[in-house]
Amino acid sequence: MKNVELKMSVKSRELPLSLNNTGDPEIASARPWAWEKKVAKSVLSMMKNPPIAIELWDGSRIQSCGQQPEVTLKVKNRSALSGILRNPDYKLGDAYSTGAIDIDGDLVKLAEIGSTYRPDILDDRRFLGKVINFLGRRARPNTLSGSRHHIHHHYDLSNDFYQLWLDRNYMQYTCAYYENLDYSIEQAQIAKLHHVCRKLRLQPGDEVIEFGCGWGGLGLFMAKEYGAKVKAYNISAEQIKYARDKAAREGLQDRLEYIEDDYRNAAGTCDVFVSVGMLEHVGKENYKTLGSVIDRCLRDTGRGLIHSIGRNKPKPMNRWIEKRIFPGAYPPTLGETMNIFEPYSLSVLDVENLRLHYAKTLEQWLARYESNVDKVLQMFDEKFVRAWRLYLSGSIAAFRTGELQLFQVVFQRPLDNDLPWTRRYLYPSARQV
Amino acid sequence: MKNVELKMSVKSRELPLSLNNTGDPEIASARPWAWEKKVAKSVLSMMKNPPIAIELWDGSRIQSCGQQPEVTLKVKNRSALSGILRNPDYKLGDAYSTGAIDIDGDLVKLAEIGSTYRPDILDDRRFLGKVINFLGRRARPNTLSGSRHHIHHHYDLSNDFYQLWLDRNYMQYTCAYYENLDYSIEQAQIAKLHHVCRKLRLQPGDEVIEFGCGWGGLGLFMAKEYGAKVKAYNISAEQIKYARDKAAREGLQDRLEYIEDDYRNAAGTCDVFVSVGMLEHVGKENYKTLGSVIDRCLRDTGRGLIHSIGRNKPKPMNRWIEKRIFPGAYPPTLGETMNIFEPYSLSVLDVENLRLHYAKTLEQWLARYESNVDKVLQMFDEKFVRAWRLYLSGSIAAFRTGELQLFQVVFQRPLDNDLPWTRRYLYPSARQV
Repeated sequence: MKNVELKMSVKSRELPLSLNNTGDPEIASARPWAWEKKVAKSVLSMMKNPPIAIELWDGSRIQSCGQQPEVTLKVKNRSALSGILRNPDYKLGDAYSTGAIDIDGDLVKLAEIGSTYRPDILDDRRFLGKVINFLGRRARPNTLSGSRHHIHHHYDLSNDFYQLWLDRNYMQYTCAYYENLDYSIEQAQIAKLHHVCRKLRLQPGDEVIEFGCGWGGLGLFMAKEYGAKVKAYNISAEQIKYARDKAAREGLQDRLEYIEDDYRNAAGTCDVFVSVGMLEHVGKENYKTLGSVIDRCLRDTGRGLIHSIGRNKPKPMNRWIEKRIFPGAYPPTLGETMNIFEPYSLSVLDVENLRLHYAKTLEQWLARYESNVDKVLQMFDEKFVRAWRLYLSGSIAAFRTGELQLFQVVFQRPLDNDLPWTRRYLYPSARQV
Repeated sequence: MKNVELKMSVKSRELPLSLNNTGDPEIASARPWAWEKKVAKSVLSMMKNPPIAIELWDGSRIQSCGQQPEVTLKVKNRSALSGILRNPDYKLGDAYSTGAIDIDGDLVKLAEIGSTYRPDILDDRRFLGKVINFLGRRARPNTLSGSRHHIHHHYDLSNDFYQLWLDRNYMQYTCAYYENLDYSIEQAQIAKLHHVCRKLRLQPGDEVIEFGCGWGGLGLFMAKEYGAKVKAYNISAEQIKYARDKAAREGLQDRLEYIEDDYRNAAGTCDVFVSVGMLEHVGKENYKTLGSVIDRCLRDTGRGLIHSIGRNKPKPMNRWIEKRIFPGAYPPTLGETMNIFEPYSLSVLDVENLRLHYAKTLEQWLARYESNVDKVLQMFDEKFVRAWRLYLSGSIAAFRTGELQLFQVVFQRPLDNDLPWTRRYLYPSARQV
């Protein structure tokens, strides 16, 4: 079964499995059997009756007892029904992408319902959850070449694509910071960049090492706004090229070195270590290695910050997102994150959870994505458009329902007593962005 | 060896072990042998030449090469020298308490030097460190009765004793908060209480459950200043009596319930869970149990805070402090602390490290302790006076050198989106305390 799925091409329009494995479209569109409806009804009941209706391909409807449905899931064929009943975490994503299911109502709402009404049987500590997680384990670890493959899959899609919906100034593909809820995505990303620089007490002339620099926005901001000197690592060729071009256009190439290499090969020492949105791709088996590289680079008076998606409980990334969108991704718990620091002389000073900020960031991304959906369709195809719509919507839901967290962790050397006494300096009374 | 030490009475004036195990005072005061001086010299060299001189009982001096000594350790007999050379973490405390060693210079400075020049051989990951930690393992676990024994040992010493040197208003025997560095201990403790209440977004009428309430100061403050209703658990009989009397004197007994019982027996539910300075006594084997009790008590809209001494790396409490001052104590790393939260539906929102605040708190305690030392001597004896002087001084050093940390962890339910967007509310522009 796993092999069949792995072979599924991005272009394929149909799911790889149907209930009877014939793949015959006539059978797939035959009238639903009574027991299929019964199974669907009992899944809703196991989910403790979420406000969802399921409309089958013959127009028949199944819905929770005593609940007015807020969203209708329109299932177009037997194979899609079979998939989402057996393994909703994974099959729903593909079925939605191919159009084998459709939604009447709000996709984010559906994802929120799926998260809050999640049946206990899918709990990762239970048998079925364990089986599903086992089947969903990564095909390729985050070795030097594995990481390169994973990062290429996601970040080298096309710079033009990301430019359609990310903020226009700094191309930040990470959580923004809404110190003011009226902020546009541009304002909120600048506020995030300031928040990170303030947490790091960045000074003119500071030498910065950055791991996972995206399109180079944070480094650019640090050089331009704070007078820092940045050496930034990334294994995405497209992003590095973009970052270098932009640094040259801004005349900042003497302060900005973008290096196309793995963080494990980082050389030299720094006053400031920063990594925003890379830890998700490191893999928890590599945290001790990451810590050793930070420990090697950070000077005795250095300050560091890691910003990452996280979780409250250990759990793999949603299988569909991990397979189709972000291969190799794993959002760690705070406990797991501490495996970066605790083997070394590193002291955690501050942790902030910005979960709702990521929900709002994603809302603004999704709105801009939808307003540019025609252009996305020209670049890719309908299946891609739907997959990314689901990914952005599902991520909004995951941050709203506490399935995912966003942690910023600030650290320093344990013997360094040059510490701020309070965090008041992070909250200046008036700020223009 | 361990049994001999366990039998050592608090009143005994002499160390239980001498090099030749005769305990003969004539032998103990005989002239130092040449090899003893050599060993002492090589220990200093292993410590990479700290600015310490060792003065032996015949007046001879050993000191680090090329270092001007800042502190002189005066060793009065052979048995003390043997003890501190073999196991400084443990034996130095007893030798200082009994007067078998004395200090010329600043005791805090000596402890800081001991911490920063710590020989690698004592590292907990190395053989000798492991042996020392193994020998120092706790005789009694933190079971219901074990905890009662441990807490009685420390907190039931005498309320009058603690009143001599803690803040006068709220008897806070935990880290204060110096939002202003000029604060007295009274002002800094009130600032701490406000900081905790603000982090918990405490509202009038909120029902609070507190674990490990000390002399009841935090509960009293929450009831008086924020209009909360507090149910506070503590297994120290002396402290509970003090807290109840004070609540009655203030006419707040209808809002303050002090319960002499173990946290594991807590009943009912709450809007706010708080525990300031208890986690150190819980023992890391009980964190999952502690989490289950919090999970049972905290309502879906509840907020929680745990304030505790911690560490950057897992390591037992200093053996001498654990044996003589705080039996059963263990300061956890943040990673270990997460074992409270991660098995349950609890989401960490904020972690603040207040390490230097505890160093300053201890400085103010020590100053007040020294100014009341005559009264302490009347209550106890010279050995007690010296042991507590060393404990307070050593703790200042431990927080100054990053051996110990102070973590405040704020948490909430993962599905609760009633969250502050920023932490600005913790930093009001002007505050009177």
